Amino acid sequence: MEKTEGEIIRAKLDSDQSQSQISHLALDIGGSLIKLVYFSKNNGSSDDDDGNNKHLVLQGRLHFAKFETCKINDCIEFIRSKKLHFGGDAIVKLEQLSWYFISSSTTSLKVHSGVRLHDAPASDKILVKATGGGAYKFADLIKEKLGIVVEKEDEMDCLVAGANFLLKAVHQEAFTYMDGQKEFVHIDINDLYPYLLVNIGSGVSMIKVDGDGKFERISGTSVGGGTFWGLGRLLTKCKSFDELLELSREGNNRVIDMLVGDIYGGVDYSKIGLLSTAIASSFGKAISDNKELEDYKPEDVARSLLRLISNNIGQIAYLNALQFGLKRIFFAGFFIRGHAYTMDTISVGVHFWSKGEAKAMFLRHEGFLGSLGAFMSYDKHGLDDLSTHQLVQRFPVSGTNAGEKICCPLVGDLNDNDSIECGVYAA
Amino acid sequence: MEKTEGEIIRAKLDSDQSQSQISHLALDIGGSLIKLVYFSKNNGSSDDDDGNNKHLVLQGRLHFAKFETCKINDCIEFIRSKKLHFGGDAIVKLEQLSWYFISSSTTSLKVHSGVRLHDAPASDKILVKATGGGAYKFADLIKEKLGIVVEKEDEMDCLVAGANFLLKAVHQEAFTYMDGQKEFVHIDINDLYPYLLVNIGSGVSMIKVDGDGKFERISGTSVGGGTFWGLGRLLTKCKSFDELLELSREGNNRVIDMLVGDIYGGVDYSKIGLLSTAIASSFGKAISDNKELEDYKPEDVARSLLRLISNNIGQIAYLNALQFGLKRIFFAGFFIRGHAYTMDTISVGVHFWSKGEAKAMFLRHEGFLGSLGAFMSYDKHGLDDLSTHQLVQRFPVSGTNAGEKICCPLVGDLNDNDSIECGVYAA
Repeated sequence: MEKTEGEIIRAKLDSDQSQSQISHLALDIGGSLIKLVYFSKNNGSSDDDDGNNKHLVLQGRLHFAKFETCKINDCIEFIRSKKLHFGGDAIVKLEQLSWYFISSSTTSLKVHSGVRLHDAPASDKILVKATGGGAYKFADLIKEKLGIVVEKEDEMDCLVAGANFLLKAVHQEAFTYMDGQKEFVHIDINDLYPYLLVNIGSGVSMIKVDGDGKFERISGTSVGGGTFWGLGRLLTKCKSFDELLELSREGNNRVIDMLVGDIYGGVDYSKIGLLSTAIASSFGKAISDNKELEDYKPEDVARSLLRLISNNIGQIAYLNALQFGLKRIFFAGFFIRGHAYTMDTISVGVHFWSKGEAKAMFLRHEGFLGSLGAFMSYDKHGLDDLSTHQLVQRFPVSGTNAGEKICCPLVGDLNDNDSIECGVYAA
Repeated sequence: MEKTEGEIIRAKLDSDQSQSQISHLALDIGGSLIKLVYFSKNNGSSDDDDGNNKHLVLQGRLHFAKFETCKINDCIEFIRSKKLHFGGDAIVKLEQLSWYFISSSTTSLKVHSGVRLHDAPASDKILVKATGGGAYKFADLIKEKLGIVVEKEDEMDCLVAGANFLLKAVHQEAFTYMDGQKEFVHIDINDLYPYLLVNIGSGVSMIKVDGDGKFERISGTSVGGGTFWGLGRLLTKCKSFDELLELSREGNNRVIDMLVGDIYGGVDYSKIGLLSTAIASSFGKAISDNKELEDYKPEDVARSLLRLISNNIGQIAYLNALQFGLKRIFFAGFFIRGHAYTMDTISVGVHFWSKGEAKAMFLRHEGFLGSLGAFMSYDKHGLDDLSTHQLVQRFPVSGTNAGEKICCPLVGDLNDNDSIECGVYAA
């Protein structure tokens, strides 16, 4: 006799409970970077009944990690060494997992996790959710090396799911950054949509988000993080993206960019509101015969490049937001990396072009939208009758400000391997 | 007793007629290039009465020339050697000159030229119209070296005046370019406005044009010709913009750009309509550790760079056109230089983003809008009561298609020193 969905989940969770640890993994394999999200139960953590016996809570951590896509073997080794593909130390192979925020406490981000066993013949297969183009490109490699089947999730679906989750569930997730000032934004979940999501990976996707699973990719640009790092490598000999970004802190873009004042002899072009300090032509001073590449400081080159790309993305994002009347623009993706000058340039660009009408916001977990979305997609098939949206409603966060009820332990910038203390609810 | 405007003009022209030659000069001094337009009367040309005795016609040529702004001394020497600052061989110093199209013949572009003498004390001053930032920056240098006073004209005013003139007066001026096919566009002067003018110099200005002198600079980007040439020099060691452009013809951008197929393992990302051959990340393949700058062919680098910049300008132009409901976008400026791949990329970009709604068009005299506009601005103060618009109406071109009445001798691409055979009407 076939078990009902609920029974399957109960059975699975009971089984998990008898094990010492539960780990779940999802991947976002992009053109430059692989982003991992995985959950591990704390050793010795006690279950929290949350005053509701129907729910078992596993205390644990959400871990984030990234690898360069060209070093996918390192990533595979990492997964193998941590046994993430076997559900960590849990012996039972998980096929589908649902995982989403349902409530909050002052000390942890709580998530709901439902798992179910696949029908017997298929239970030998271990499925791992993955998104990004690499989910297609590397599916065979991953199967060969880890013996697991990659279940591909649409990249845009995952980005939006990840963004919505973060915006609705995580306290102090979104912030503005202007003139060196970081300010957290309180998100009213009743007034979140529509917004423009700008995900800056190797390339850039711009997505108009109207709700959970309701979105349209309206634009994009090929001038993104891959351009910064690709051109930056060629121009500066830096050995890593982070080195290039760090270098740009020390640079002065005015050495290479042609400013309005350079053309106008130091004066503004005031009739059209261009200050003498505005950039008229990015890298425009490099047209001079007098200097070769080696005569420019790498830090100045890095700075000009960062400014060009950040400003360009800010402008295209604003123009798209304008087209659809979107006032809120969230910038995410691993290009930003909490870098002050990047965020400042984007913010100033959006502010300038929109005459203050539109607002640029950033996300603390900016690089992990896709992988979080893939993680959450385990739910999609496992609990067909319950959408994330419905579950959020079943376990509503009191008040209109979701963020206020949840406290993340992280208050500074998020580093690669920082994890989020969290709990898993089992229905 | 003060002479009337008409008398002054008559007097001046009579004076000119007694000389062997009349030359007029205007400059557009940009961040990278100085563009010159000057008129010279043909030796031995006979006056054409045009069946209207009120008009004297000087047959001659409109000449175009350009110099790198950093070599302004060469430009000054050129002006001196041709005595352009003295009105060529004409002895009488011209202070103000009006110059505009009024009619057409099958063999020449005819222009109307009015000049007037300044009041005696000021007649020692020779004024030359100039626009672009360099009109401000180099005014003192030009005065010092040539003894002439630069009369500054607003850059946007001049661009628009130049564009409107070309579109209304010159046959086979505007054309589309797609898939290697160049097609001239018939301009209906009764249905010309509004349009978007995208002038790609060192930087890029985007101007919504609603009529003669009616316009607004709605946007721009610092990623323009200066970026192509500046970054291109640093990356390829090319010695000139044209060499870089030429190099790009041979290149293959797929060597350096990261395509959708590179990320997706050769397949399309069909759900959002991105073909595997679409560029996901410009220069994105250069993130690879395996290759340094010297391992890439300069022609591939040039090609990727040209594609990045052309595509980006096309996209931003389209987004601005969309905002104002403009269906026609004219691309001009010295970045384009009639280069097939540049125009193709811009055209494809505009076509792609607008789903075929908007059309990219190019101008044969693309690089000389500003200098033509400055040339025409001599009229502004000399004939205050007659706007160019009114004069066009006084001497209407029969039919709705201005272009059909005028034939330029040039049918191929315009080179630096190509001139336009034309006549000057004197009222």
